[in-house]
Amino acid sequence: MKEWEKNFRRVVPYTPGEQPKNANVIKLNTNENPYPPSPKVMEALQAVSRDRLRLYPDPTASVLVNAIAARYEVEPECVFVGVGSDDVLAMAFMTFFQSAKPVFFPDITYSFYPVWADLFRVPYKKIPLAEDFSIRPQDYYPANGGVIFPNPNAPTSRYESLEVLEDILQHNQDVVVIIDEAYIDFAGPSALPLLKKYENLLIVQTFSKSRSMAGMRIGYAIGSPGLIKAMSDVKYSFNSYTMSQACLAMGTAAVEDEEYFQEMIRRIRRTRDMSGQRFKELGFSFPEPGANFIFVKHERSKARDLFALLRENNIFVRYFDQPRIDDYLRVTIGTDQQMDALFAFLKKHL
Amino acid sequence: MKEWEKNFRRVVPYTPGEQPKNANVIKLNTNENPYPPSPKVMEALQAVSRDRLRLYPDPTASVLVNAIAARYEVEPECVFVGVGSDDVLAMAFMTFFQSAKPVFFPDITYSFYPVWADLFRVPYKKIPLAEDFSIRPQDYYPANGGVIFPNPNAPTSRYESLEVLEDILQHNQDVVVIIDEAYIDFAGPSALPLLKKYENLLIVQTFSKSRSMAGMRIGYAIGSPGLIKAMSDVKYSFNSYTMSQACLAMGTAAVEDEEYFQEMIRRIRRTRDMSGQRFKELGFSFPEPGANFIFVKHERSKARDLFALLRENNIFVRYFDQPRIDDYLRVTIGTDQQMDALFAFLKKHL
Repeated sequence: MKEWEKNFRRVVPYTPGEQPKNANVIKLNTNENPYPPSPKVMEALQAVSRDRLRLYPDPTASVLVNAIAARYEVEPECVFVGVGSDDVLAMAFMTFFQSAKPVFFPDITYSFYPVWADLFRVPYKKIPLAEDFSIRPQDYYPANGGVIFPNPNAPTSRYESLEVLEDILQHNQDVVVIIDEAYIDFAGPSALPLLKKYENLLIVQTFSKSRSMAGMRIGYAIGSPGLIKAMSDVKYSFNSYTMSQACLAMGTAAVEDEEYFQEMIRRIRRTRDMSGQRFKELGFSFPEPGANFIFVKHERSKARDLFALLRENNIFVRYFDQPRIDDYLRVTIGTDQQMDALFAFLKKHL
Repeated sequence: MKEWEKNFRRVVPYTPGEQPKNANVIKLNTNENPYPPSPKVMEALQAVSRDRLRLYPDPTASVLVNAIAARYEVEPECVFVGVGSDDVLAMAFMTFFQSAKPVFFPDITYSFYPVWADLFRVPYKKIPLAEDFSIRPQDYYPANGGVIFPNPNAPTSRYESLEVLEDILQHNQDVVVIIDEAYIDFAGPSALPLLKKYENLLIVQTFSKSRSMAGMRIGYAIGSPGLIKAMSDVKYSFNSYTMSQACLAMGTAAVEDEEYFQEMIRRIRRTRDMSGQRFKELGFSFPEPGANFIFVKHERSKARDLFALLRENNIFVRYFDQPRIDDYLRVTIGTDQQMDALFAFLKKHL
């Protein structure tokens, strides 16, 4: 080891899902939206002026913040934006979880949580989900340094009711509770109304899934002004200008096109319902899906083998080689045509 | 204080230069390029496809990394890209400065350095510049946890020769030395050739100044594969996908248009030379400028008053209310027309 290497921060990085370079792939592995963003987003892109690009963007990203605030009926002081919800969550870990007590999150959940905790030296404890992958609120009653979980959860796709969430919030009023709603638009109601009662609640959402903009990197958090101020202070201590001129313009256009947004969600939910039916017919079981993916287990075939077989045939899904879920595949909902191809293949090979 | 607020990370954030909303301002306060980016950048923007936007970008940003590697004649393993050079520098602070010994940087320098150090709890020591704002290499000989400084320095605009840099490198072979070359294209030779001799050297550059793309947020570092790997691990532990599809396409187009780049630099250097002459005629003095700004002090007028007067008249420059430099104004080099307006105003009011 070189002398200077002794001063390195050593980490085990998060492994994102594969981004195949081959365009002929049926890509059901990273929960992208199969439909493109609103045409209004493209108009906004085309309208970005050459002279605009030479100037730093507004560090407060106010045009985008205001659009999100208007859409969700909150004050702009309650909105934080970042480079995808991963950036927002990283900032939240760095800002809110400075306790010596462990932060609680489920054992089966977004695998970036322990990575952020390690990066920022945040102690944490994984709380096992129940056998059916549900969250048991009472497991979150003991003293902790904060709570975070996605709803719907990933990779299970399970949605927890607002009663479950409020139970957890009622028992955790002295720490920040983060609900990661990356997939909420495909599920039941959001926890947003709970913000009125819980100043320590932070809700994180993203443009990458329901708004079809994974390629532009836009995420946001909604919470009380005190939480948002603390996160913004940390953000301004890290990078003042994170949202490019193109992001600001395109993100604003996306959030303003409500009709297109609702229509895309309707389509994906419809395909999800049909896909669930077809998975069942082929001998798969799965938790009731709330997100734009289904977490399936076959009655006979090994998930690992099926994953490899699909991959060889240019159908990419996600497999997690970890305890409790190594019998499962996470399959993103694609277009009807893509799902047809998947099911035709499965029918032939199972 | 609310109970959960006890777990917050408390910071004093960096204050970026003002981004006035009024478009009729002569904006010489944040070192932006007065000329727009290459027309090829606009073509790349127009060519971003709608279907591309729904997909996550390549997390390795390989198209952009390869273009930078080709331009600077290094291997792609030697290139790291981020959301502006501030993002790159934040990652570098987080990755390389984990020593208990203080990191050294000049007392007068980019004011973000102590902010990052505080954010990541990196001990640091400010090393006073000489009276003429030069860096004295011997001041960097004592044991430390790393070294960072800009060349040319900001806000002084002073450029240090490669001999000075190599003197510092020779005496700091056990720590990472970062040379922040945000403004190097407006100055003498880059320290890039020193990379062959010093594996512990990291050079950081940006698209925000010489490539006229502050609005798109692209920065990069060039260093040995060991340094880049360590930074990438930290980056992948923070946010896997930082560079949007638009950034990748536009950044690549920018770095490939060498002719436009050289022409814009020639223009700015020419305007800088003429502006220096005019400042002198009006009773200003300044260190020999290496960057796209001049750090001027008037023989009689107080910098603070001049700053306020200019601002009232819609001419924005930068004033730093801090010891040793509170007699100075940092004036970005604008177009010839903008500089004419500045000097006409100064002539009338001094």
